Amino acid sequence: MDMDVEAGTAPLYPNLESLGAATAFVDEIVDIVESVPLFQGLDAEEIRTIAQFMPCFGAPSGETLLREGEPGDYLLLLLTGQAQVWKRDGKGQNRKITLVTPGTTLGEMSLIDGQPRFATCITTMPVDFAVLRRDDFSRLLETAPRLCAKFMLLLLQIMTQRLRETSNRMLQLGPLV
Amino acid sequence: MDMDVEAGTAPLYPNLESLGAATAFVDEIVDIVESVPLFQGLDAEEIRTIAQFMPCFGAPSGETLLREGEPGDYLLLLLTGQAQVWKRDGKGQNRKITLVTPGTTLGEMSLIDGQPRFATCITTMPVDFAVLRRDDFSRLLETAPRLCAKFMLLLLQIMTQRLRETSNRMLQLGPLV
Repeated sequence: MDMDVEAGTAPLYPNLESLGAATAFVDEIVDIVESVPLFQGLDAEEIRTIAQFMPCFGAPSGETLLREGEPGDYLLLLLTGQAQVWKRDGKGQNRKITLVTPGTTLGEMSLIDGQPRFATCITTMPVDFAVLRRDDFSRLLETAPRLCAKFMLLLLQIMTQRLRETSNRMLQLGPLV
Repeated sequence: MDMDVEAGTAPLYPNLESLGAATAFVDEIVDIVESVPLFQGLDAEEIRTIAQFMPCFGAPSGETLLREGEPGDYLLLLLTGQAQVWKRDGKGQNRKITLVTPGTTLGEMSLIDGQPRFATCITTMPVDFAVLRRDDFSRLLETAPRLCAKFMLLLLQIMTQRLRETSNRMLQLGPLV
C-alpha cells in the first residue's frame, strides 16, 4: 500500500523518515478527530479510505517542511508535534504568523491552485505529518467521488474560516481600498 | 423546472422579478464562461445540469442583494449589470470593498459555513443574478456527485484566490501578529 501511494511521482522529503500511509494512524486520528477539521464528521472507514492516499513522514525539530515561494502541490496534516509558520512581510522581513499544532492542515492553497507556497513552515519539535498530493487527490476523486466531495466540503470550510479570519484581521489593521 | 427549483424552501427575494432557473441563461453563460470562474472548464451540458439548481432574479439599481451580518446560506452569481460591495470597518464605517461585474460570485462563504453575511452588496445598475442555495447544493451533490466534486474544486479555486489576495493586502497594510 505504501509503495502504491508513492508510485509514479517524485519522492517527497527523501531525507525524512518515511512512516508509510496514514492508514497506520487512523486510530490516533479518530481519537483526535475533533481537532482535525480536515476529517470532521467523517467516520473511521472514510478516514481510512482517504488515509490510503496520504503518505506520512517523521521530521526532527528545526526542519523546513514548506518554504515560501517554492513550488509544491500538496498539503500537510500535522499529526504530532508543533511547527512555526513564517511569512515575509512587505519589507522582506520574516515574521511569525502562527504556531500550528496537531490536526492543522498547511499548504492547501498550493494543493488547489498549484501556485508557489505562501508561507514557510519550520518544525519546533519532532513531528509526524501526513501529505496529500494533487495526484493522489485526483485519484481519490476517481475512486470515491462521493467521499471526495465530502472531503472537499471540509476543505472549503477550512478555507472559508481562514478567509473570514484573514479578512477580519485586515479590517482591524487599516483602511480598505 | 422553475417550480421544482423553488419547492420546499422559503422564497428568496419575493420582491424581485423571478427569471426562472439559470438553464435559460446557459447559452449566455457559455459565451462568457472565461469570466465566470465558477464554471471554468465545465462544458455546456455540465453548466446546464448545475443551472437547473440555480433560480435567477432581476433587480433594479440600488437594490440590496446581501446585507452584512444577516443570515443566508446561498451564493449569488452576477449574470448582467454591476454591484458595489460594502463592509463595515473597525470603526463601524461602511467602506467600499470592490465593484463586481458579471461572472463574479458573492456570498460563497455563507453557502459553505452558514455564518452571517460578511459584506453588503448593492446593485449600481439593473442586474440579473443566479442563486445557489445550500439545499440545492446538497441535491446537486446527491444527483451528480462527480460533477459536484468538479464544481467544488472550482469553488475551492475561487476561495484560494480570494485568500491569497486578502492575505497579500493584509501584509501590505501592517505588521503580522
